[in-house]
Amino acid sequence: MSKDIVKPSTLPGFLELLPQDQILFNKIKDTIRNTYEKHGFIPIDTPLIEKSEVLLAKGGGETEKQIYRFTKGDTDMSLRFDLTVPLARFVAQHFSELTFPYRRYHIGKVYRGERSQRGRFREFYQCDVDIIGNGKLSVIYDAEILSIIYSTFKNLGFEDFTIRINNRKILNGFFGSLHIKNTVDVLRTIDKLEKIGEKGVTAELTDLGLSKDATCKILSFIKIQGSVEEKLEALKSLDLKTEIFQEGIKELATVIDYIKSFGVPEKNYILDLTIARGLDYYTGTVCETFLDDYPEIGSVCSGGRYENLAEYYTTQKLPGVGISIGLTRLFYQLKEAGLLRNHAPCTLTKVLVVPMDDNCNEYSIKVANALRESGIISEVYFEDVKIGKKLNYANKLNIPYTVLIGEEEIKSHVVSLKDMKTGSQELVTLDNAIKTVK
Amino acid sequence: MSKDIVKPSTLPGFLELLPQDQILFNKIKDTIRNTYEKHGFIPIDTPLIEKSEVLLAKGGGETEKQIYRFTKGDTDMSLRFDLTVPLARFVAQHFSELTFPYRRYHIGKVYRGERSQRGRFREFYQCDVDIIGNGKLSVIYDAEILSIIYSTFKNLGFEDFTIRINNRKILNGFFGSLHIKNTVDVLRTIDKLEKIGEKGVTAELTDLGLSKDATCKILSFIKIQGSVEEKLEALKSLDLKTEIFQEGIKELATVIDYIKSFGVPEKNYILDLTIARGLDYYTGTVCETFLDDYPEIGSVCSGGRYENLAEYYTTQKLPGVGISIGLTRLFYQLKEAGLLRNHAPCTLTKVLVVPMDDNCNEYSIKVANALRESGIISEVYFEDVKIGKKLNYANKLNIPYTVLIGEEEIKSHVVSLKDMKTGSQELVTLDNAIKTVK
Repeated sequence: MSKDIVKPSTLPGFLELLPQDQILFNKIKDTIRNTYEKHGFIPIDTPLIEKSEVLLAKGGGETEKQIYRFTKGDTDMSLRFDLTVPLARFVAQHFSELTFPYRRYHIGKVYRGERSQRGRFREFYQCDVDIIGNGKLSVIYDAEILSIIYSTFKNLGFEDFTIRINNRKILNGFFGSLHIKNTVDVLRTIDKLEKIGEKGVTAELTDLGLSKDATCKILSFIKIQGSVEEKLEALKSLDLKTEIFQEGIKELATVIDYIKSFGVPEKNYILDLTIARGLDYYTGTVCETFLDDYPEIGSVCSGGRYENLAEYYTTQKLPGVGISIGLTRLFYQLKEAGLLRNHAPCTLTKVLVVPMDDNCNEYSIKVANALRESGIISEVYFEDVKIGKKLNYANKLNIPYTVLIGEEEIKSHVVSLKDMKTGSQELVTLDNAIKTVK
Repeated sequence: MSKDIVKPSTLPGFLELLPQDQILFNKIKDTIRNTYEKHGFIPIDTPLIEKSEVLLAKGGGETEKQIYRFTKGDTDMSLRFDLTVPLARFVAQHFSELTFPYRRYHIGKVYRGERSQRGRFREFYQCDVDIIGNGKLSVIYDAEILSIIYSTFKNLGFEDFTIRINNRKILNGFFGSLHIKNTVDVLRTIDKLEKIGEKGVTAELTDLGLSKDATCKILSFIKIQGSVEEKLEALKSLDLKTEIFQEGIKELATVIDYIKSFGVPEKNYILDLTIARGLDYYTGTVCETFLDDYPEIGSVCSGGRYENLAEYYTTQKLPGVGISIGLTRLFYQLKEAGLLRNHAPCTLTKVLVVPMDDNCNEYSIKVANALRESGIISEVYFEDVKIGKKLNYANKLNIPYTVLIGEEEIKSHVVSLKDMKTGSQELVTLDNAIKTVK
């Protein structure tokens, strides 16, 4: 049969992993899932495709340009671009069937037709947890959510990372006291402090039309130094009377108080008055997380408190707090930074059972079954090739042990256990082989 | 703020589960995953969107009509409609980086714009395992794949199910000996035996232009009765000299021989000479699996041996054998049949820690942390409401235990453990609470 061969390839911006990386990726994904589940978050799995009218209810902005939108028959549909909009739709739709505070986690793929560039993906995993209140939600949950960032990265094997915490009410109250209207632009400028320095920020703020006095106050505000407690004290001593500012300080103090109770070590969080996050969404606690030794990776987990999750779908007031990990990008960055081990296995198999010839197949199958019953992942190599090639299969996949089965072994009810790293081989009973492998 | 409310809803044919069902669904999905992994299958996670040119390389047929195809910019892309085409593309693309026999599993969503009807879904999970050889692949792997069907359904808690096994070479050889060209039509007619009876089949075969003699032979062929061994003997005694028929019998005999070695009980498989499966794809072993007490559900797992996985993407010959479980449909059908427990939990949480007032929060957090460290999923209820409402949260979610923390408990270093089913409550040490819950 001769036919045209189509070159096998994937679309740009769509990450696909080979076995070794996929196994690592799944391990990370499982760790995140287990951490979320351990804290009583409930899984959700919404469709990847939604009605465009629903997904774009909020409308406008960059999002709409990036969305994968298409029609089939008469239906206008879109691929989800985050997990928050589907959550809002879900909670509004199933409101009466959910129990509040509703704790949900969602790990799934989302789609954004961004300009394709290194480290940017058009299909990527997000790993979200949120706690949604019915009408109101205690600020203690904000602290719990921050503690879940800590537990997650701790469980992923990180020690040196910092959760930068702020509260939008403090920013809003402070800017309000200066009668600043273009908060968005001012915050964007403040964000550049590390990049363009104090002089640059001053110049830009002046360009934005801010008075010398306001610029000065902003600079001294964002330069407030010291420990979390000292910063809180400094904020209090600003003595701003606006209600929102005072509310922000009170919330932040509570969050800081509780984050300790949740067991987050002091080295893993700071108060950072420049953190603002998505400006039209978050209303209270906000946070970003950085790996101390790899600031270039940027925030690896961020989120915060919002007043109203589902205002486009329901009149019910649903405040919540949540975080998101962009797993695909994180994985890519960790790999680029050399933080993922190079000697990860290429398979989950721990033992390859190798029959010396066809007469040994049946016994080999029994051995593999017994290994599996003991919880050891194992497989039998059935291809009729030379022994060297059989062992080569184990070597190429980094399988740590092989069990060789010949007539001798069958007769004596033993197995030849070979450690593929050291090359050492010994005749042992199946029970002892299981003990060694375990 | 007053805005237009968009009615929150999902697209028809897209299943979305509430917490109780989602937890059950994930449990089933995890069981399938664990079974696949236990046998040394390697995970894969390909993009949901592929180039249309790649996905539709084979072209034609029902598939093309059902596909979700769209353009973004200049790119013609489509959502995958199964996991086999992406596997073929993946193996062809990464051929030199894979080790053969390549054992992969893939659990993921696929998309088909089918006519929307009860029990049919446009987005659904498939759970596939395949073993791909480079050039050749031992027929013993066919038996292994069948044994994985057995292990999977066994692990899912089923006892009474039957794997119906056949070999396409036997069918092809038999039809060849009768010089039948329109094999597809004949097989479709044979498939109706149970529905339209022997007379109906005879009439249809005659309509298809088959001679009386051929029709007779076909009927006695598909009516071959007896145990697996008796059927094999009957096939051999047909004494058909065509090579392909003899090859089919030999393969089937080997598969049956090994399926026993793999530990599949005789009650869980039969030889069914009417099973044919997708006609242009499978070339050797074919199988379908039925739940004995729920034949109306149809096949819950099917698959078989194919000669050439990736002929549209490479000139490499890649024979393989695999199976697929349509999980979304299976879940739906099991639920419809009342086979899923109604009293499944609505959360994964085993213990709700309830502080009596705000002064007890810190101690409550410590208790929850300790519970989690012992592997017990737990959460703290922080909303400032009456105790009855706090306990109601646990009741509504079917959380089996609550731990009540008041000043008394804190002072005496104990907890009040409440069994939410019996309502009994006792003061115990944290260690004893952990023991009881476990």
